[in-house]
Amino acid sequence: MNAAVNPGGLDALFRPRSIAVIGASDDPRKIGGRPIRYMLEAQSQVKVYPVNPTRPQVQGLTAYPTATAIPERVDQAIIAVPARQAEAAVADACAAGVRSIVMFSAGFAEAGEEGAAAQARMMKMIRDAGARLLGPNAMGSFNTAERIFSTFSTAMDRGTPAVGRVGMVSQSGAVGSYLQNLVISRGMAISKFVATGNEADVQAAECLEWMALDPDTDVLMLYMEGCRNGPALIRALRMARQMRKPVIVFKAGRTEAGQSVAASHTGALAGSVQVFDTVLREAGAWSCQTLTEMVDVAYACAQGRLPPDKTLAIVTVSGGVGVMSTDAAMEAGIELPPVSEATLAEIQKELPLAVGLNPVDTTAQTVGDRAMLTRAVERVLRDRPFGSAMLFFANAGRNARDMEILSEPLRALRAEFPLTQLALCVQTTPEYRKQLEDLGYLIFEDPVFCVKALAAAAELSAVRRRPLMLPELAKIALLTLAHSPDEAQSKEILARAGLRFARESVAATPDEAVAAAEAMGYPVVIKVLSAEIGHKSEVGGVALNLTNEDAVRAAFARVTDNAGRAVPEAEIRGVTVGQMITGGIQTIIGGHRDPTFGPIVMFGLGGIYTEVLKDTVLRTAPVTHETALEMIRSIRTFAILDGARGQERADLDAIADAIVSVSQFIATQGPEVESVEINPFIALSKGGCGVDALIHVRG
Amino acid sequence: MNAAVNPGGLDALFRPRSIAVIGASDDPRKIGGRPIRYMLEAQSQVKVYPVNPTRPQVQGLTAYPTATAIPERVDQAIIAVPARQAEAAVADACAAGVRSIVMFSAGFAEAGEEGAAAQARMMKMIRDAGARLLGPNAMGSFNTAERIFSTFSTAMDRGTPAVGRVGMVSQSGAVGSYLQNLVISRGMAISKFVATGNEADVQAAECLEWMALDPDTDVLMLYMEGCRNGPALIRALRMARQMRKPVIVFKAGRTEAGQSVAASHTGALAGSVQVFDTVLREAGAWSCQTLTEMVDVAYACAQGRLPPDKTLAIVTVSGGVGVMSTDAAMEAGIELPPVSEATLAEIQKELPLAVGLNPVDTTAQTVGDRAMLTRAVERVLRDRPFGSAMLFFANAGRNARDMEILSEPLRALRAEFPLTQLALCVQTTPEYRKQLEDLGYLIFEDPVFCVKALAAAAELSAVRRRPLMLPELAKIALLTLAHSPDEAQSKEILARAGLRFARESVAATPDEAVAAAEAMGYPVVIKVLSAEIGHKSEVGGVALNLTNEDAVRAAFARVTDNAGRAVPEAEIRGVTVGQMITGGIQTIIGGHRDPTFGPIVMFGLGGIYTEVLKDTVLRTAPVTHETALEMIRSIRTFAILDGARGQERADLDAIADAIVSVSQFIATQGPEVESVEINPFIALSKGGCGVDALIHVRG
Repeated sequence: MNAAVNPGGLDALFRPRSIAVIGASDDPRKIGGRPIRYMLEAQSQVKVYPVNPTRPQVQGLTAYPTATAIPERVDQAIIAVPARQAEAAVADACAAGVRSIVMFSAGFAEAGEEGAAAQARMMKMIRDAGARLLGPNAMGSFNTAERIFSTFSTAMDRGTPAVGRVGMVSQSGAVGSYLQNLVISRGMAISKFVATGNEADVQAAECLEWMALDPDTDVLMLYMEGCRNGPALIRALRMARQMRKPVIVFKAGRTEAGQSVAASHTGALAGSVQVFDTVLREAGAWSCQTLTEMVDVAYACAQGRLPPDKTLAIVTVSGGVGVMSTDAAMEAGIELPPVSEATLAEIQKELPLAVGLNPVDTTAQTVGDRAMLTRAVERVLRDRPFGSAMLFFANAGRNARDMEILSEPLRALRAEFPLTQLALCVQTTPEYRKQLEDLGYLIFEDPVFCVKALAAAAELSAVRRRPLMLPELAKIALLTLAHSPDEAQSKEILARAGLRFARESVAATPDEAVAAAEAMGYPVVIKVLSAEIGHKSEVGGVALNLTNEDAVRAAFARVTDNAGRAVPEAEIRGVTVGQMITGGIQTIIGGHRDPTFGPIVMFGLGGIYTEVLKDTVLRTAPVTHETALEMIRSIRTFAILDGARGQERADLDAIADAIVSVSQFIATQGPEVESVEINPFIALSKGGCGVDALIHVRG
Repeated sequence: MNAAVNPGGLDALFRPRSIAVIGASDDPRKIGGRPIRYMLEAQSQVKVYPVNPTRPQVQGLTAYPTATAIPERVDQAIIAVPARQAEAAVADACAAGVRSIVMFSAGFAEAGEEGAAAQARMMKMIRDAGARLLGPNAMGSFNTAERIFSTFSTAMDRGTPAVGRVGMVSQSGAVGSYLQNLVISRGMAISKFVATGNEADVQAAECLEWMALDPDTDVLMLYMEGCRNGPALIRALRMARQMRKPVIVFKAGRTEAGQSVAASHTGALAGSVQVFDTVLREAGAWSCQTLTEMVDVAYACAQGRLPPDKTLAIVTVSGGVGVMSTDAAMEAGIELPPVSEATLAEIQKELPLAVGLNPVDTTAQTVGDRAMLTRAVERVLRDRPFGSAMLFFANAGRNARDMEILSEPLRALRAEFPLTQLALCVQTTPEYRKQLEDLGYLIFEDPVFCVKALAAAAELSAVRRRPLMLPELAKIALLTLAHSPDEAQSKEILARAGLRFARESVAATPDEAVAAAEAMGYPVVIKVLSAEIGHKSEVGGVALNLTNEDAVRAAFARVTDNAGRAVPEAEIRGVTVGQMITGGIQTIIGGHRDPTFGPIVMFGLGGIYTEVLKDTVLRTAPVTHETALEMIRSIRTFAILDGARGQERADLDAIADAIVSVSQFIATQGPEVESVEINPFIALSKGGCGVDALIHVRG
């Protein structure tokens, strides 16, 4: 491994050559005893030095009273002492010159203010010493290839894990350890594991990036509750994509109640679920809602083969399973291209009741001789190339006779179609399962889960073949404002960034308003103009459809008067006189700065659609014109823009141009520009224009 | 079992005392050999008579050349001959006087027209003989308590199943048999099983009803693709509800593609997914999307205890699992009431880092001594009553030491809280799993699945405690029309059924129109009146907001002219002159006759909401006022009626009255009344009224 693939210097965490265990216990069940026991059991080549001032030996190894007393300079210190002794242990480890500390000790930032202060003091020592800290309150890390087990995870009670190619990053130790066991029970094996706990220093995102570059890791699993560094996570996900490694993510804390539990136990902000989902989708990660789904998708990716495309063949002994699998395929977005009638006719020569072009249902006719099944599969796969195939063989993997009949034909199929991902959906025994996996087949029990996992693997594979296209930042002047501009100023600024607005003039007096209206032509709209008044219609500050001079004068008086009474402290510059736009469809285009992930652009239909249906779509900003079009097409109410109910189609390119401009604007501004909103942006059949705009600057 | 609990005479199917196997095979793997082998293995007390003209003995039993040659009158015949010999076999069985036939033979209605004709001929013979037919193309049925196995299901290869209390009904043999294996692998046992195949006679619904009344069955599982008799299914579901037996249903064919696969393999219409879901929800059945969910929910119900309410306590060794379980609980609609701060303080005396009031997170502090965990659980359960509790103990169920420590406290907890459904979420071994189940705990691996299954069981339990309230049919005159009435007639009919409409008069001439407008007061709306023209605005047949006599005259001419040109064959009666309703919110209220389930009432927001968002809700008709209110509140866009964006709240009672009236109308009419639609029904802040109405009568 060369220096370039050691981001954040995390080699010190994952690949130490020597480890001091401060708080080493002779009891192999205690958390200070477990890492020593694991490394002894694993016959690790790493040097392990127990540190325990009260015993000369720990689990048969020479113990030292302090880390500094160890005769060599050690790479890593594991700290497994009670919280009140942790600071002294850190001082000892730093004095001993370690490059990384893995801290099991808990009772710090997660336990209140006092703990947070202690954590900050330790962190300062560690930073001054130039080391990295995993934790505190961390379950630790391990590296199976080098037999390094800096962890107290009880998942090792079933033996230290075998060497594999799945990398696992979890913010929660207990979830990580549970997931580790699920993964191992599913017949997979792990390359590197880390549970990051309080993340005082080392965070999940940088571990993910390190593993994305780790030549021993092919598939990445990530469990998160909150992200402390959004850009680092985006970088890690992009790196994984570039290295063509699938990333499977479970982000917990999707509901308000779930987020509040997360906040109480980790202290991290859970952040906006919609933004998190957007970031994951953009980076081509697979987002899961259950541990089972996570394990299923990892399993479908971890056998060294990803489906070359999004087509699926289903051959089934059960018509019913064909039905539910077809439902699942449609819902998961994987295609079921039909085989030819000629192929079905061939199959029917042997199985006269066989039916369907995909799924192909062999019916119960093969109960007597399962070899007829594999011949049907062979005919299907020879018909046309498929990215994946699901073979529902029901209970056929349960008895020795079926296995005897099926093994050789399954081996031949695997050899003949080396690129196709082949999955068997069967109930089988652990022993036969292993045999079938060794033949190169994925094994699932639930046909719907099988289809979903194959679809996920196909999507992850497709994303990894597409190059990542990131738009360049436009050249837009940086705003330097002490407070939010008013509507007219906001429009001026956004017009310079490329946005179009309805014609509009500022009028300080009724006479100026009339002059503006006559220059522009009636009807006009008058809106009060004040930087302090954001929601003008709520204060009676808007008058629509004014058709003559008298109406304009009356409206001027009314809107300024209403606004002055509603917000007495507002400084009122006058009004805007604007062209009255009729027809078109109201949309909303916005941008904001997410506290975790930075600039985000938003699009949706306006008015009631935004408020009641929450039918909006987000992307990290800036976006390309193509991405903007994709955003527009992805809202649930897209049909309204696309000519539903005989209306004219909206000019999608004009909307997309406006989305791109807003995205560039929010992306190019400094952090004091918190948000921008064009509401409504009226989409017309040709062109479109903003009618109201607001830029919010932190005052 | 008394006569009252033998609906459809299905005792003949499930409880025969003697069985002839026509097409009996000496090969215990062939479908004609399997039922004999199973009953021999199971030491069945039922008399089994192999029928095989070519052998004196089959599997050691005396064989007979025909069923009529059997010395006693047999209750049941299993027919396992090729399709071309099936008719002769049926004739033989009927002549022998059987009361039920179980037909494995395939190649009938599912295989095309010729097969359908053969099936019809056999059905006639069987009906004439007064017997019942299961199949053809059926995997058969079994009854574990009486050791009757009239099936060729290969699921028996692992041994004939033990006696249990789960009843299973499947239209698909292969799905049923696969599900049977999944259920057994999960440690449950089956009472009765049936796979109904082509359903030429016996249908899934009546089997479900029979099992709902079967004293040996507590929990019902139903797999369906299409329903041939909707009212029978509704009756069966209601019977199960009345008997307080949970029904867990998987309806496959949810997508268009899935439905077309279902049609090709069963010949049954899949029917409207939305109507099916409505029927299941109304009857209090649990609808699943995967076999895994089906097994999970059945498992949560099958231990003889249903949660007394919808509260859940979560005690977890992992904060992360607390977060994901909270998300799952919120999404599944189960409550997490907090324990008191005092209870947490008690727990913290032993576990100082414990955090949260529900979930209660004990953190990793219990790794050294798992008994601390059960003491924390005890404190939580003593704090207040909980319907269910999920105890996430991670890997604690994996080693002998933990089991030794945990067994006694778990037994004590079970005894102290006999009503609470207790679930352990752990990874364990099959042996320990059994031990924990024997202590009265449910065992799950995936915490999200565990929460969902407990929520489902709580919901099934809640439904079963609520009495089923069915509204009485109103007295509404039966329509006897040869064709659909026009708008004015439709409104007249519906007004008699209790609906309110905007004021309106029919005018045959311009003069009559003007007179009507002046009597009513301007502005008015004019619409062309013709039974042949349904969508009046599409043909230019509507003129809005007419404010004087000239406008009315011009509009009369224009709408009748436009309509006449667009639909030359239409007979135009004149126009309607109506009050122009301004304001309010457009809704749509409809009724139709579903081909499977009969009268259905529908409600939704009007216009674009119906068309683009498909935001509508259905119920079987008639409905009560209360149900109508629940329908209104359940649409996604309910906020629009509830005063979103500062609008006035709509008068929900007025809408509900209209829904009730439409539901009573469609429910009381004959089958020739296909549908009724009030579109729009304008919901006002006080009251509401229909503006357009159409009754569709089959011509």
